[in-house]
Amino acid sequence: MSEIRIDPITGRHVIFAVERDLRPTDLWNLAKEVNPMSELDYVQKCPFCKGNESATPEEILKVPDSEDWKVRVFPNKFPAIKSMDDENMQSSKPHSIYEKYSGIGTHEVIVESPFHNTNYFTMNLEDFTIFIEAMVLRYKAIISNKDIEYVSFFKNHQKLAGASLFHPHSQLIGLNSVPDFVKYEVEGSKTFFDKTHSCPYCHILELELSKKERLIYENEHFAVICPFAPKYKYETWILPKKHLPYFETEDNIDELAKALYFCFKAMYIELGDFPFNMFLHALPKTMKSGEIYYHYHFEINPRLSGNAGFELGTGIYINSIYPEEAAKKLKEALEKEEK
Amino acid sequence: MSEIRIDPITGRHVIFAVERDLRPTDLWNLAKEVNPMSELDYVQKCPFCKGNESATPEEILKVPDSEDWKVRVFPNKFPAIKSMDDENMQSSKPHSIYEKYSGIGTHEVIVESPFHNTNYFTMNLEDFTIFIEAMVLRYKAIISNKDIEYVSFFKNHQKLAGASLFHPHSQLIGLNSVPDFVKYEVEGSKTFFDKTHSCPYCHILELELSKKERLIYENEHFAVICPFAPKYKYETWILPKKHLPYFETEDNIDELAKALYFCFKAMYIELGDFPFNMFLHALPKTMKSGEIYYHYHFEINPRLSGNAGFELGTGIYINSIYPEEAAKKLKEALEKEEK
Repeated sequence: MSEIRIDPITGRHVIFAVERDLRPTDLWNLAKEVNPMSELDYVQKCPFCKGNESATPEEILKVPDSEDWKVRVFPNKFPAIKSMDDENMQSSKPHSIYEKYSGIGTHEVIVESPFHNTNYFTMNLEDFTIFIEAMVLRYKAIISNKDIEYVSFFKNHQKLAGASLFHPHSQLIGLNSVPDFVKYEVEGSKTFFDKTHSCPYCHILELELSKKERLIYENEHFAVICPFAPKYKYETWILPKKHLPYFETEDNIDELAKALYFCFKAMYIELGDFPFNMFLHALPKTMKSGEIYYHYHFEINPRLSGNAGFELGTGIYINSIYPEEAAKKLKEALEKEEK
Repeated sequence: MSEIRIDPITGRHVIFAVERDLRPTDLWNLAKEVNPMSELDYVQKCPFCKGNESATPEEILKVPDSEDWKVRVFPNKFPAIKSMDDENMQSSKPHSIYEKYSGIGTHEVIVESPFHNTNYFTMNLEDFTIFIEAMVLRYKAIISNKDIEYVSFFKNHQKLAGASLFHPHSQLIGLNSVPDFVKYEVEGSKTFFDKTHSCPYCHILELELSKKERLIYENEHFAVICPFAPKYKYETWILPKKHLPYFETEDNIDELAKALYFCFKAMYIELGDFPFNMFLHALPKTMKSGEIYYHYHFEINPRLSGNAGFELGTGIYINSIYPEEAAKKLKEALEKEEK
């Protein structure tokens, strides 16, 4: 018999199989991939390194606005989605089962540091805060565009998390439609609200802040927890304590940066440098009725295993560490550091 | 403007961004991961190699049933889901927002070859057929268990596809519940059926077999296509031409093996050895009303990119090759081979 947990918002199933971590592997224990550039703070061929600014499109934002920038934002040279009407796309034929439409959007790159070999695990809090502030500025600018319905902020760290370039960077994609996964979460939150008259995230926060069983870190405005039914080993969520559906209304940016910073600090102490994705989920502009039951948050999805054929085929995740155990380890790591 | 396609069954959105493949990378072009064991047909430490049978649980099936086996099936030593009541799990507390339940199931490993360095790309058709026959035997045995609702057959090839071991193997997990992704597909098929009075897969087959724009291979009983809105570059689906909801009623196993074999052959000629997942989707036992609108099929999901933060956060996939182009290349690869 195995314990299967259900995420209270999405209904997603997670099987816990603690012994899975004991299984042998001849693929995941190989010496770390050799990247000869990972030791250097400047790489001539890297388009994101300080000094190579001409290799990227002109910047939209530079902080500070000088040669000695710490963060640079510019349009993605190879955008996932285009901003202009530069293709003559044929729309779906009437009565076709195959539907297509024109997506219009924006795709920006945030270079998080001038230095090639920096990352979230090794940055100091001051620099990390400057990056978060720059991200927030661009998020607000993009979401204020009347053609943009949703902004996806995300980070890919290492190849196993889908990163293309080593230099620390994250991305903002503005879309003119609501992404499915966000829609499902908002709908799941409505179902929860209809039953309990409470925002599920507020409800979760109340529980986690009182029981502290899955709480890793908190400050005045934010909490960092391992969720009850995590898809990934050491998955964490960062939530504002106050009920806020939209990210652009968040004022406590310093506290947000601190919460994220200490979360990565804890993970680094416990796990070392490892592949992960981070993303933001917030209420889409046109889903206004969700204002009472949706709550913006960040997710960190470590990519230490999984997303294999079983997960892709079934939507069920297999997790080899209970979140209570993961949270305990991460919390202890942070307490050790503080001493 | 970017072309966004919608999968006719799941409604999933895929953005096409052909230029994305031109973007620079310093992570994906590194020399292939060095696996010193990948050249050998026998590795002493590999639990799946011929001669090391004592390193695995006792086999359930061996074909042929002799020391010179070509395929071996045994229970997974580190199962994702357990078959017995060997834990004292506390069930959810009443009124808790956190639900959990006991999963009971089976988890079997199919060692697809006695040789360490074999794979789908290099196996001959005869050996590949023996493997498929063994898989079908075990699938039928597991699905006939009254406690099993669904059997997930899946394959992980290479680390980027989540494989733990190099030696060629696939897995069968029997579950006592219906996986979400299968449920969504069955529900999507019902919506399609309600509008068109046709099984979506039969409808797709009719279109693809007449237009041949995305058809890679066909034989009397099977078709191999690139779907209209593929999540992954070079994604392919293998479908029986006849409307069959359940996999266990399939009789044309030789033809199925041939379709899969030639699909992998085409991919190998075009792409070389690459990471992929393969899985089977079939109608769950308790969704009998789906018999008229659901159609079993295999999916091959190449893992040449993606499943990064944007995909995990939004559920939208970015594909850099149109399926018409991918199918053309794969079809031409096969035609070249046949000459």
